[in-house]
Amino acid sequence: MSPTMVEHSGLDIMCLNKYCHSSSSSSSSEQDKKVFTKLKLSLSGDYPRKNAEILSGQYGTNVLLIGAALMLAIAHHGPSVKEEHLLSFVTCLMLLQLIWMMWYILVRDRQKNARTDKDVHATTCWIRGGLTLLALLSLIMDAFRIGYYVGYQSCVSAVLGVFPVIHATHTIAQVHFLWFHIKDVIKSFETFERFGVIHAVFTNLLLWCNGVMSEAEHFLNNHKRRLSALGYGNLTIVHSEPHCNCTTSTCSMFSSSLFYLYPFNVEYHIFVSAMLFVMWKNIGRTIDLSLNQKRLATKTQGLTVGPILGLFALASTIGILVVYVTHVEESLQTRQSAISMFYIYGIVMLVSMCSAGAAALLIYRADHVPLDTSKNPSRQLDMELLFGSSIGSWLMSWCSVVAVLGTNSSPPYRWTNLIYSLLIVLEKYIQNIFVVESLYRQQDDGQSEDPELAVSPEIFSVTSSLAPPYDGIINRAYDKPERTCVTMENDQEESGQVYRCPRKPSEVPLPVGSKVKEPPNVKRQILKNIAVFLIMCNISLWILPAFGCRPQYDNGLEQETFGFSVWTTVLNFAIPLNLFYRMHSVASLFEVFRRV
Amino acid sequence: MSPTMVEHSGLDIMCLNKYCHSSSSSSSSEQDKKVFTKLKLSLSGDYPRKNAEILSGQYGTNVLLIGAALMLAIAHHGPSVKEEHLLSFVTCLMLLQLIWMMWYILVRDRQKNARTDKDVHATTCWIRGGLTLLALLSLIMDAFRIGYYVGYQSCVSAVLGVFPVIHATHTIAQVHFLWFHIKDVIKSFETFERFGVIHAVFTNLLLWCNGVMSEAEHFLNNHKRRLSALGYGNLTIVHSEPHCNCTTSTCSMFSSSLFYLYPFNVEYHIFVSAMLFVMWKNIGRTIDLSLNQKRLATKTQGLTVGPILGLFALASTIGILVVYVTHVEESLQTRQSAISMFYIYGIVMLVSMCSAGAAALLIYRADHVPLDTSKNPSRQLDMELLFGSSIGSWLMSWCSVVAVLGTNSSPPYRWTNLIYSLLIVLEKYIQNIFVVESLYRQQDDGQSEDPELAVSPEIFSVTSSLAPPYDGIINRAYDKPERTCVTMENDQEESGQVYRCPRKPSEVPLPVGSKVKEPPNVKRQILKNIAVFLIMCNISLWILPAFGCRPQYDNGLEQETFGFSVWTTVLNFAIPLNLFYRMHSVASLFEVFRRV
Repeated sequence: MSPTMVEHSGLDIMCLNKYCHSSSSSSSSEQDKKVFTKLKLSLSGDYPRKNAEILSGQYGTNVLLIGAALMLAIAHHGPSVKEEHLLSFVTCLMLLQLIWMMWYILVRDRQKNARTDKDVHATTCWIRGGLTLLALLSLIMDAFRIGYYVGYQSCVSAVLGVFPVIHATHTIAQVHFLWFHIKDVIKSFETFERFGVIHAVFTNLLLWCNGVMSEAEHFLNNHKRRLSALGYGNLTIVHSEPHCNCTTSTCSMFSSSLFYLYPFNVEYHIFVSAMLFVMWKNIGRTIDLSLNQKRLATKTQGLTVGPILGLFALASTIGILVVYVTHVEESLQTRQSAISMFYIYGIVMLVSMCSAGAAALLIYRADHVPLDTSKNPSRQLDMELLFGSSIGSWLMSWCSVVAVLGTNSSPPYRWTNLIYSLLIVLEKYIQNIFVVESLYRQQDDGQSEDPELAVSPEIFSVTSSLAPPYDGIINRAYDKPERTCVTMENDQEESGQVYRCPRKPSEVPLPVGSKVKEPPNVKRQILKNIAVFLIMCNISLWILPAFGCRPQYDNGLEQETFGFSVWTTVLNFAIPLNLFYRMHSVASLFEVFRRV
Repeated sequence: MSPTMVEHSGLDIMCLNKYCHSSSSSSSSEQDKKVFTKLKLSLSGDYPRKNAEILSGQYGTNVLLIGAALMLAIAHHGPSVKEEHLLSFVTCLMLLQLIWMMWYILVRDRQKNARTDKDVHATTCWIRGGLTLLALLSLIMDAFRIGYYVGYQSCVSAVLGVFPVIHATHTIAQVHFLWFHIKDVIKSFETFERFGVIHAVFTNLLLWCNGVMSEAEHFLNNHKRRLSALGYGNLTIVHSEPHCNCTTSTCSMFSSSLFYLYPFNVEYHIFVSAMLFVMWKNIGRTIDLSLNQKRLATKTQGLTVGPILGLFALASTIGILVVYVTHVEESLQTRQSAISMFYIYGIVMLVSMCSAGAAALLIYRADHVPLDTSKNPSRQLDMELLFGSSIGSWLMSWCSVVAVLGTNSSPPYRWTNLIYSLLIVLEKYIQNIFVVESLYRQQDDGQSEDPELAVSPEIFSVTSSLAPPYDGIINRAYDKPERTCVTMENDQEESGQVYRCPRKPSEVPLPVGSKVKEPPNVKRQILKNIAVFLIMCNISLWILPAFGCRPQYDNGLEQETFGFSVWTTVLNFAIPLNLFYRMHSVASLFEVFRRV
């Protein structure tokens, strides 16, 4: 595989032909030896980092593209390429990843006494917690798949049974890996590990693509069924049902429940691949431990307006979802009113989100803080992902705008659709700027401006009464107590040892009136409320398309302008990106919430 | 538009409600004033750089997406959205860019005495020369378009006449901009200039997309015509011919010549947008002038094998192109033999390219040099573009592999297609690694390892006899003569002043035998030959698809597995990327050629 190995003898020939003959001072055999030693040295040791990155990056991309080619072939429903082929390919990739993870964990265990660098920015407890939850739902999905396979065992390929078993094993192993190794900064066997990590990244990405494809097909079939029910002509619905009867009574239950679990499985895989990608970027990096790592305490004081409005948004979303899904199946009249309702609801949501984001940006403008430009691959990736995944729904919105302006028909929701689409563009625009600026603002300056804040984290510390008092004795070890504790906290879980950090004596929470007398605190509280509100709104806007409320399929305007195939292609590209955007912005906004 | 402006009064309300009441020490009106002053200050001056990047980046992306939405609507050939709409939109964008460029040039002229920083890595003379050539061909294309419009004036929209006129003006102004301002590092009106530059980037990108779409449609229509001629059923060919007769005799000549000029126009726009993107990345950057900027002399000594083999490849390519294009239109038998011929030719080409690349990498492995990790947005972008544009043809190749392995039919070129596709993947893999490693290798170490090289550039210097002699007198100003000259050289063209750099006395070129006795020189010569050979091969592989040799349309294997619409979509995405890849790798390899 490696060109360097294959062409080994090539250089000797060249050497014999040109280079050794032309040098008169040293004999050709001596030169040969020298070249060999050099070659061996550079092969074994210091393969340039940039090259290793490109090598492994290209490998990963190609793995994904093979999968994409298989998926495209399956989407055609031709006779030659079947879903089994794709599933076997993915199963092989997962097995490879399992082997690599096992190897990695074993090697790490043997080097237990050697200190491993950790990138504290790489992930947070609550992200890992969330992922564990998503992984549990994925496991349930695997169980359903196994149940489905058992029912149809006689007439479906064995791959359909093997795949969920391997996937479940893979999920469990990967969650273990996430908890104990995702922050590692790898410094040994770098080139090999790069391949391992990137393999894991792209395996998860392929699993994401696979999930997205299954979901898209499900929605497309639903859409076609509705169109047929409304008498819109002869669209062929391709059923992938097996050709025998189910031997158990639960098959249809399993297959219909699967589609409610898909959204979680899909988010699980894309999040894991983003985290693994950060790990890949960190390989061989030298972490600057002197950077100030502030302990982020999740302060909940003064949080009222944001959560209340957010919960209200969430509740109304669920109402809208139920009404929409039940009404869109009915007559043309009800269908149109359901779509209109959706757009009006959307406009209200988006206007509030835009105002919230704009208010937050205005607060930032009034309170100038220099931006932090230190290297942080995790943050950089967050930003790029937010920006990149916006493109999907922006494209969808602009298509809607073009369709609304160009169409001749005039359904009741024509102009609300226009406003909704423009607001979608504006809302993502503002929200992205807000998130990026929040993540890049330096935190220290906030503290120095605001002396009260140095104390305030302690108020919410639950364990503070357990800590020894710190009554004014100056001690070098306690000079930067916060930072020291962070480092310890992060090591703690891996090493199994428990450190207790010295803390200042806990203060009795003061009445709110005297606490918020410092102006920046009010700003912080407003920002926190805004962040919470935006989180809830983003969750709402994730729930709707994830569970079947996709008016872009149902309103018919865009389909008229772009044609069925182009428009469904755009939707199949844009909706998964949009779903990812919403989930990812929830994660980013939570980070913002903790920082402001 | 700006949320900061719209929500201006919002903060005051917030301030009145919460923050000012809670502060007892200062009066509310004083606080109001303070906030106002702060707001004004931050609005006028230091808008954070990261935010400005995101703001302008998002603006540009949305401009492109509006264009993409219009294109998708046009591709459907519906009644509502016509090509005129897209062209008017693009014309407006070009006008805006023209205004911005004029403004920029005027402002620069007024600040003539103030020193502007230049990013010497941003571009080279030969790239600008090449672009000027492409721009000239674009101008010819505009002339043809105007001629076409004049012929059909009575029945086509006026936009078809306005567009080429504006495009020609835009091209001329942009080439002027490229020659005199593309290296500027903008440090005043940063936020505004960011919008200007990114607008220019995305206008060019949209013009690229537009060209690509026209080309793709042309090829698709050709393909459908061939299929119909072979009796493959009823594919509707959409003609965009006007509904009246041409008043001059040259209309058909104009419209058919246009398609031979499209490839150049397309490459022109994508290259310009890449260069402008580097300019955008450079805004506000502090250039580290202490970095060693080595003068790159294009040495041509010892170049024999590479150019000869390259010319041979180029000549055979043109032969293959002619044979292919004439034979593929004929009977099924000739068609199949033409396709087989193409694949065999491709395999020979790719095997030689792979071997050349692998040999070059092997030489690098034997000659360890640390990589240069200094910041260089231009190089970073080069790498990302190479990698990103490879994805298109990798996807195409993997689709071919899936199709070949999955198909039941067995045309004579089945297995050659498989080998060809795998080699395409391997060739890009190796070539990318080679280019990236070449661009990242530090050049100084090569010099210190190889004392002879410090002298050798002078041998090829044409102007050396004009320079004052440098006979051993040690002078601090001449300590690093090469670097000083480079800086001057780069300023020279803009400031209009001419510096003469002191040079060592020119040496009479020594006989080749004694010159090449130092081993690294031989390595360099091999590398140079390889680079030239690869350049020629990449040009060959650009010519073939650009001028109509696209066996992916004609071989029928992939179409069988993926279906007509999916496969043409894949091709419409992959072929333009592949064309860009080839052109871009020619540029990168030329850079490599100058460096090694």
